[in-house]
Amino acid sequence: MAETMRALRKLEAGPGAILQQVPIPTIGPRDVLVKVRAASVCGTDYHIYTWDPWSANRVKPPLTIGHELAGEVVAVGREVTACKVGDYVSAETHIVCNRCPRCHVGEYHLCENTKILGVDTDGVFAEYVAVPEQNVWVNDKDIPFELQSIQEPLGNAVHTALNGELTARSVLVTGCGPIGIMSIPVAKMAGAEIVIAMDVNEYRLDLARQLGADLLINPTKEDPIEAVRSVTRGYGADVVLEMSGNPTAIRQSLKAARNGARVSLLGLPGRPLELDLGADVVMRGLVLQGITGRKMWQTWYQVRSLYRAGLAERLKPLVTHRLPLEQVDTAMELMGSGRSGKVVLMPDLKA
Amino acid sequence: MAETMRALRKLEAGPGAILQQVPIPTIGPRDVLVKVRAASVCGTDYHIYTWDPWSANRVKPPLTIGHELAGEVVAVGREVTACKVGDYVSAETHIVCNRCPRCHVGEYHLCENTKILGVDTDGVFAEYVAVPEQNVWVNDKDIPFELQSIQEPLGNAVHTALNGELTARSVLVTGCGPIGIMSIPVAKMAGAEIVIAMDVNEYRLDLARQLGADLLINPTKEDPIEAVRSVTRGYGADVVLEMSGNPTAIRQSLKAARNGARVSLLGLPGRPLELDLGADVVMRGLVLQGITGRKMWQTWYQVRSLYRAGLAERLKPLVTHRLPLEQVDTAMELMGSGRSGKVVLMPDLKA
Amino acid sequence: MAETMRALRKLEAGPGAILQQVPIPTIGPRDVLVKVRAASVCGTDYHIYTWDPWSANRVKPPLTIGHELAGEVVAVGREVTACKVGDYVSAETHIVCNRCPRCHVGEYHLCENTKILGVDTDGVFAEYVAVPEQNVWVNDKDIPFELQSIQEPLGNAVHTALNGELTARSVLVTGCGPIGIMSIPVAKMAGAEIVIAMDVNEYRLDLARQLGADLLINPTKEDPIEAVRSVTRGYGADVVLEMSGNPTAIRQSLKAARNGARVSLLGLPGRPLELDLGADVVMRGLVLQGITGRKMWQTWYQVRSLYRAGLAERLKPLVTHRLPLEQVDTAMELMGSGRSGKVVLMPDLKA
Amino acid sequence: MAETMRALRKLEAGPGAILQQVPIPTIGPRDVLVKVRAASVCGTDYHIYTWDPWSANRVKPPLTIGHELAGEVVAVGREVTACKVGDYVSAETHIVCNRCPRCHVGEYHLCENTKILGVDTDGVFAEYVAVPEQNVWVNDKDIPFELQSIQEPLGNAVHTALNGELTARSVLVTGCGPIGIMSIPVAKMAGAEIVIAMDVNEYRLDLARQLGADLLINPTKEDPIEAVRSVTRGYGADVVLEMSGNPTAIRQSLKAARNGARVSLLGLPGRPLELDLGADVVMRGLVLQGITGRKMWQTWYQVRSLYRAGLAERLKPLVTHRLPLEQVDTAMELMGSGRSGKVVLMPDLKA
Repeated sequence: MAETMRALRKLEAGPGAILQQVPIPTIGPRDVLVKVRAASVCGTDYHIYTWDPWSANRVKPPLTIGHELAGEVVAVGREVTACKVGDYVSAETHIVCNRCPRCHVGEYHLCENTKILGVDTDGVFAEYVAVPEQNVWVNDKDIPFELQSIQEPLGNAVHTALNGELTARSVLVTGCGPIGIMSIPVAKMAGAEIVIAMDVNEYRLDLARQLGADLLINPTKEDPIEAVRSVTRGYGADVVLEMSGNPTAIRQSLKAARNGARVSLLGLPGRPLELDLGADVVMRGLVLQGITGRKMWQTWYQVRSLYRAGLAERLKPLVTHRLPLEQVDTAMELMGSGRSGKVVLMPDLKA
Repeated sequence: MAETMRALRKLEAGPGAILQQVPIPTIGPRDVLVKVRAASVCGTDYHIYTWDPWSANRVKPPLTIGHELAGEVVAVGREVTACKVGDYVSAETHIVCNRCPRCHVGEYHLCENTKILGVDTDGVFAEYVAVPEQNVWVNDKDIPFELQSIQEPLGNAVHTALNGELTARSVLVTGCGPIGIMSIPVAKMAGAEIVIAMDVNEYRLDLARQLGADLLINPTKEDPIEAVRSVTRGYGADVVLEMSGNPTAIRQSLKAARNGARVSLLGLPGRPLELDLGADVVMRGLVLQGITGRKMWQTWYQVRSLYRAGLAERLKPLVTHRLPLEQVDTAMELMGSGRSGKVVLMPDLKA
Repeated sequence: MAETMRALRKLEAGPGAILQQVPIPTIGPRDVLVKVRAASVCGTDYHIYTWDPWSANRVKPPLTIGHELAGEVVAVGREVTACKVGDYVSAETHIVCNRCPRCHVGEYHLCENTKILGVDTDGVFAEYVAVPEQNVWVNDKDIPFELQSIQEPLGNAVHTALNGELTARSVLVTGCGPIGIMSIPVAKMAGAEIVIAMDVNEYRLDLARQLGADLLINPTKEDPIEAVRSVTRGYGADVVLEMSGNPTAIRQSLKAARNGARVSLLGLPGRPLELDLGADVVMRGLVLQGITGRKMWQTWYQVRSLYRAGLAERLKPLVTHRLPLEQVDTAMELMGSGRSGKVVLMPDLKA
Repeated sequence: MAETMRALRKLEAGPGAILQQVPIPTIGPRDVLVKVRAASVCGTDYHIYTWDPWSANRVKPPLTIGHELAGEVVAVGREVTACKVGDYVSAETHIVCNRCPRCHVGEYHLCENTKILGVDTDGVFAEYVAVPEQNVWVNDKDIPFELQSIQEPLGNAVHTALNGELTARSVLVTGCGPIGIMSIPVAKMAGAEIVIAMDVNEYRLDLARQLGADLLINPTKEDPIEAVRSVTRGYGADVVLEMSGNPTAIRQSLKAARNGARVSLLGLPGRPLELDLGADVVMRGLVLQGITGRKMWQTWYQVRSLYRAGLAERLKPLVTHRLPLEQVDTAMELMGSGRSGKVVLMPDLKA
């Protein structure tokens, strides 16, 4: 094995990232060294690349970025028992403290002291990455690397979607970025009566259609509340999966929900927003669930089961671009364009 | 029986209410005529009396106001089987449609077409009131009339408090109006580890203390978030019962809750408010539950059981004033003063 | 309208049923008169026909039997608002008391005083039937009458299947009579990873296969516990839907379930059976749920939604026989043969 | 520190246990060495001492027995972070595999490969014991050692009792051994309307009364089903906590439960028993929950909170005997007599 590797590095506070030759990571007794096969790009990576205010506040360069991983185990620490050399693995990206009450009761996704791979520690946009044994998930070998990699954001979609009943329910998905889109076939497979997708971007609505949405709403072209009510006997949706973080969409989604509806919130509004909490939530008995991360490891088991039941096949149209590490700037441009599904970096591709 | 009775009437759009002599209500085949023994005053009654914007928009005079009822059945319609003459009864004040999907699945408190006794139909600040059989609850006879009457707002408190686990939990009650205060002994009886009461009004905090609060917080005198964290090992409260509707209190309550906490919202903010939904709810996995009304009839059964287990005794300090119908203006003044617990009108008291 | 009609009558304690000409039922102010279009045959009907010990103890002749209904409303009582003449309807067959605590809290399926249509009151194997308004369900008109009729037992299957999570779960169905078979496409539509069907009857296993089972187990030919474990990584099924009532199958199903599994019991053992409750339930943390009837009306809404999402189409192979009322003996012979799916009586068919 | 210690050893297959001088245990990098202050005696210890069939099948001598622990940390392995020398600790006695799906999803109490301290590994009836860091619980220092030690069986009681709603419910506890008795104040603190205790042993019923039971039933003296129904308006108990494992009591408890009741089963019947599953469970919609161990660590947090809220004080009458290790035979005689609450061995007591 070589001693150095290529890695996409954020070297200083400011926009951009540089492909550098750096030492291959060393591993401790409970770590795993993974050769990266596919590393899909998340909106968070784009935020760090463009150096938005959140990144400026959180990220401490120098750092190898990226966190959505598919790869092959090439070395394991001496105490590792969870996987072995040759296994195909992905990574849970939340590195939890194991000490706070949330961790103690098995609610690791709510850990009070979470660190994130590729945000707080060196990440996966590289040829190799060191991952704590506790964060390794062993994959079925017959899944394409791109679909292994996207299990992390898919886990967000599954956690959001399955955080309550979906079978025989009407479901509104607000926001058709990759996680929103992934939630559509999940809801369909869970037996939703109807899945309604809402976005202002027609490219994304078209992807939503390809992934199985029964009704598409572009709120710049029609009243979304009326549109939802017209297909739910006038009452509104049973379940809202809020994937946009957009204040207008959030407010509309509350009004498009029926009395007593579940509204699961994954999308992150960047700043405080105004809500009519009294009229839209209290008086109507809505339940708003903040969703963060993935349940360890319930969500990963659910993803595996859904893949086996056909979800892997259904998700194929979502992966729209595969690029070598060298083309990080193209990848980020695609992310910003609103004209991509999942963009995947593959270190083995010829530059 | 006389043919007319005294009733507190809102005669026209505007402040005030007038004691009038009006005909005793007639009843249909499925109605019940109740002689009023005690009728406690709700904040809603005060809003209608003072004619706030909500009332101006909702209430159509002329109307007999009041909805919290204790009384004795004096006549029943020919098809009535739920109670009989001589029974002591209270009233569920939500008159539901029985036709919408929420009603069809037994979630009557979420009915899409609810009418409210004393708001949309003639109410209980009178010597007699006609109540639909479906809204009648038969009381144990050994409960004082005042405590029978306050079961309706107590039901709000019980519905809010018991809408999730309380046993062995830390509980923050924000807002110590009567419903907030009633939730304190409910949480104590349900085995909360600690019940923290927060209000800006020292009179109300003192009532909270009398009703069993373990810790009192006046947010004008100390940092409420720090105060809550200091008694919850730094993590925040497991459960928030939001009873104030006050925007500042709501925002503080979210920050004073631990990751993954339940925040049950009964207090009604009068207008839209600003929330940091991303940082305070999504990232921290909070669950916000809008609470409205009482579950029919689960909540009423719970209230009965809690009364039998000792809640009636614990609530006695809450009833601070008993007045005849004639003293409605005094009653409303007390309501507005912030220096009362529950104020109860009793038609049989000498004026 | 004629004044008399044909009806299948149990005239005295003992086997058999007779087609008689009887008066068309009269209806009260809250009843609905339904012209029967399809009436599917339930195992209970077969038990009453053959006069088993349960029937001898429960049924009081004379009685018109049958309870699974599809028909058209031809008259309504003067207070009826739930449906109108011309509507296509089915019937919830549990006639509940509306007075016990279970009814009061909306758990009508657990009513302490349930009567059953066609068991305790005149039923649907006739040209017309009178149904209380409270028991009427209005159907979508584009569903074939046979599939409207089987919603009642399908409701049993849906209630059993959806009484806990199914998505991404492994599901074992023990007993492939009609209700067991119907639960298979329900579990598939709800996103089960794998649905395993078990029965000793090869005809029924073949129906199970047609309805979507992923794995068939005939416990007379292989060890069912090993067979289930071999497709669940050695741990056993996440969920058991026990539809057989057979003591051996029940004991096997417990051992074929993983630690902590949900075991939903709909099948009715005719007599006490021996269970190793300590080793199979307590030590392994199983949850056994007794399932009776259908939730009013949650289950019916779920059935409607699933029909709209494609269940109606999937169920078509299940209806194997359509017969006129005159051929009741043939229908009952088929029921007893183990070589039928659903057998449906249709009064309009030529004898 | 000395190099040897006293320990109660099961030296060979057969009845009895011997106090021996053995080496103080050595600890690995993630273990903790605890000086034992109090070690309460469990029914399981009695079964091993008397060498019942279960013990003969499970236990492999030589072994130090005992598992209910209170002690002080005297040494920690080099990687231990969960506690430090001087801490007062108890032990979760289930040593789980951390590898099976139940462990992976945080349901450690349902681990497929559980080992038990003092049953499969050397236990706590000794001056010192080595405990894996993962099994250590740090106690509040102001709790008496006896009450620290009984947290393990108390955790069984709390897990059973709080595995569903208790507030405002009627609760039947069948079996008043120590765990059954401990569940009584837990149910009272959780706001049960009434707690009914049932046992054939008058000594134990008297302890149940001292711990707060509202009604005592001796089924050898009255019909327990009638007795329960007479205080539950004829319907039966909302919740059953089955702590006896006795077949007759289990059958009675099902009949004494209302339709739809929760029946939580902790008591272990030693062999298969006959149940009328159809009539008593399926038709009546009961839910039977097998309960094993304690939730890690939810149950321990609940115990801590309940202790702080007053449970420690309420439990004091339960500890009826304190004995030095030398008096193991007396302790076991007391266990077998039916005339003891908790018997606690304290190594520091003078023999």
